[in-house]
Amino acid sequence: MTKQASVSIAIDAMGGDIGLDTTLAAVITAQAKHPDLFLILVGEQAAIKSHQLFSKIDLSRAEIFHCTQVVDMDEAPANVLRHKNDSSMWKAIELVRDGKAHACVSAGNTGALMASARYILKMLPGISRPAICATLPTLHGHVHWLDLGANVDSKPEQLEQFAVMGSELTRAVDNNASPKVGLLNIGEEAIKGNDVVKEAGKLLQNAPINYIGHVEGNDIFLKKELDVVVCDGFVGNVALKTVEGLAKFIQKSLEAQYKRSLFTKIAALLSLPVLKRLKTTIDPRMYNGATLLGLQGIVVKSHGNADAFAFANAIKIARLEVKNGVIDKIRDKLPQPTTSLENNKSS
Amino acid sequence: MTKQASVSIAIDAMGGDIGLDTTLAAVITAQAKHPDLFLILVGEQAAIKSHQLFSKIDLSRAEIFHCTQVVDMDEAPANVLRHKNDSSMWKAIELVRDGKAHACVSAGNTGALMASARYILKMLPGISRPAICATLPTLHGHVHWLDLGANVDSKPEQLEQFAVMGSELTRAVDNNASPKVGLLNIGEEAIKGNDVVKEAGKLLQNAPINYIGHVEGNDIFLKKELDVVVCDGFVGNVALKTVEGLAKFIQKSLEAQYKRSLFTKIAALLSLPVLKRLKTTIDPRMYNGATLLGLQGIVVKSHGNADAFAFANAIKIARLEVKNGVIDKIRDKLPQPTTSLENNKSS
Repeated sequence: MTKQASVSIAIDAMGGDIGLDTTLAAVITAQAKHPDLFLILVGEQAAIKSHQLFSKIDLSRAEIFHCTQVVDMDEAPANVLRHKNDSSMWKAIELVRDGKAHACVSAGNTGALMASARYILKMLPGISRPAICATLPTLHGHVHWLDLGANVDSKPEQLEQFAVMGSELTRAVDNNASPKVGLLNIGEEAIKGNDVVKEAGKLLQNAPINYIGHVEGNDIFLKKELDVVVCDGFVGNVALKTVEGLAKFIQKSLEAQYKRSLFTKIAALLSLPVLKRLKTTIDPRMYNGATLLGLQGIVVKSHGNADAFAFANAIKIARLEVKNGVIDKIRDKLPQPTTSLENNKSS
Repeated sequence: MTKQASVSIAIDAMGGDIGLDTTLAAVITAQAKHPDLFLILVGEQAAIKSHQLFSKIDLSRAEIFHCTQVVDMDEAPANVLRHKNDSSMWKAIELVRDGKAHACVSAGNTGALMASARYILKMLPGISRPAICATLPTLHGHVHWLDLGANVDSKPEQLEQFAVMGSELTRAVDNNASPKVGLLNIGEEAIKGNDVVKEAGKLLQNAPINYIGHVEGNDIFLKKELDVVVCDGFVGNVALKTVEGLAKFIQKSLEAQYKRSLFTKIAALLSLPVLKRLKTTIDPRMYNGATLLGLQGIVVKSHGNADAFAFANAIKIARLEVKNGVIDKIRDKLPQPTTSLENNKSS
C-alpha cells in the first residue's frame, strides 16, 4: 500500500451474476473517486490480467490476490465452508481477518457470504448473529434499516443488539451524534404488535440509543425524525422486496403509459429530465451495498446483479465504514467488556 | 327492499374520519352504479336527514336505521364491546347477523370492527381468527393478499385457514376456477424461512387449494401466475404500509421535480394524461375495501380516511361478495362438517 492509499479493501472480483466485467469496472470508478483507496482484487490471476479492463487499473493502488475457486450464486453455504476455501469470497474475508484489508466487498451469494464471514471473522463479543443493514432513500434523506434477512425468529435481545449496532453505524457514517431509532411494529391490531416486539420495546428503552418507540411501515419512507429502523429479518426481507416489486411495477407502468401514442411519447421526451432526476433520487444503485453487522470486521454485500456503478457504491460504503471506525464504535457500546481482538483499525 | 333491489347492505354511516360527508356521497354513487342495491344507513337519524346530501338519495332503495352512538377512531375494542352496543358500527353488524342485511361496510376503527364482528357474528366453524384480505393492483392485474393485520404470531394451521379462505374468495369474486396461492417467504437466508412458514408450507400442499409454493415480496406486484398471497398479519401489515409509504414518497418526489422550473412545469402539463392514467392504475381508492374473512357474515372495512369514491368501492366489493356467495363457498371448503347457521344467502 502506498502512503497516499490509506484504506485497503479486498474485492471479491469473481462474485456476482456478472463477475469481472462488473467488479473491474467498479474498481476503476472507485480508484478515480477515492485517492486514498488501495484495492486487492481477489480472484483468478490469469482471468483478471487478461481482462480488457485490467490495463485501466492503477496498479500503484491495486494488486491481485490469486485464488482458484469461485462460489456459485446458488451454492449452499455448507458446501462453501467445506470445499471452497480457496474461493475469491473466502480469501477476501481472510484478508480482513489477517489485517491485510480493512474491509471486503462481495456481490456473491448472501447465505454463503454470511456463513463464511461468521466462520472466518467470528462475531463481536455479545452479538449472537449478524444482521444485514442497508441504507434507503426517503422523503427526508435516508434511513438505515436492519435486519433485512440474516435472521428469522429473532429474539428480543437480538433486536436490541441490532438497534445498538444500527445506531452506532449511523453515528459513525452519517456524523449523527444521536440517531433516532424506531422499532418496526403494526398499529392496526388492538394488541398492537407481537410478543417479541413488545418485549424488545422494553429492552430498547434502557439501551444506549436514542429510542423513539414504535414506527409503522409507512414511517420508513415518510417520517422525518427517524434514522434507524429495527425489525426481524423475515419481516425486513419481505417488506424490502415488496417495495422493490412496487418500484418496478410503477416504473414499468409509467414506461407503458408513455409509449401509448405519439403525444405521450413527446410528453415522455419532455419529461426526461424530470424522470431522470426522480430515478436518481430513488435509484437503488445509489444505495447498493448492505453491511453485515456484528462481525469482527467490515463485510459489505453488493446486490448480485449490481452493475459497475452500483458495485462502486458498495466499495464507497465499505471505505466510509473503515474511515469512521464502525467496528470499534459498535464494540464500545456492547454490554460485555472485551479484549481487543479486532483486525480492523481505521486510519 | 324492492323486488329490483336484491342485495341489501348495511352502511356504518357515522364511521371513518369524515363520517356522513363521505358515506352519504358514496351511497349516492353506489345507488347510481348498482340498481340491485338496497342500502341501510345506520346512524343518527336527525343528523342523516338534515345532511345536505340526503335529498339526493333514492329512498325507494335506501332506509335509515336509527341509533345513538358512534365508535371513535381510536376507541379501545373492549370499550366498544361494553359500552357502544347502540353505535352505528355495532348495529350495522347486527343487521347482518339478523338477516336484515347481506353484508355491512364500515370505515370505523379496525380493532373495534374486528372485535365487534367476532362477538356478534361469530367465527365460521373451523376458523379460529378472522383475517384481513385486501386486493392490490399488480403488473398483471391484481392479487388478493391476507392477513394484513388481524393477527400476529399466526400458527401454521391459521395460515392454512387463510389460504383456503383467500382461495375461495378469489374463486367467488374473480370467477377464477383455480386461483394460484403462494405462501410469502424469504429467499436470502440459507435456512429459507421461519419455522411457522416451513410448517405451513407442508400443510398447504395437502389443502384444497392450488398451492404454488413459496413466493417472495417482489413477486406480489410482479409475478404473473399468482392470485392469492398468504402471510402472518404482522408481516402483511408492515409490508403493505411500507409499500404505501413508498408510493407516497414517489408521488411527492415527482411533484417536487415537476415544480422545479418553467420547463418542468410544461413537461408536467403535457404529461398529465399519462400521469393520470398511471395514478388510475395504482390508485389505492380503486382498491379500497378489505374483507374480514372467517366470520359468519360479510364485513368489509374501508380505509378510515377514504373519500366517497373509495368508500363506494368498498360497497361494490361487499355487493360482489354477496352476489357470489363467498361465505357459503368458504364454509364448503372448511374441514369440519357444519350445520347451516349462516345469515347471508346470496341472491
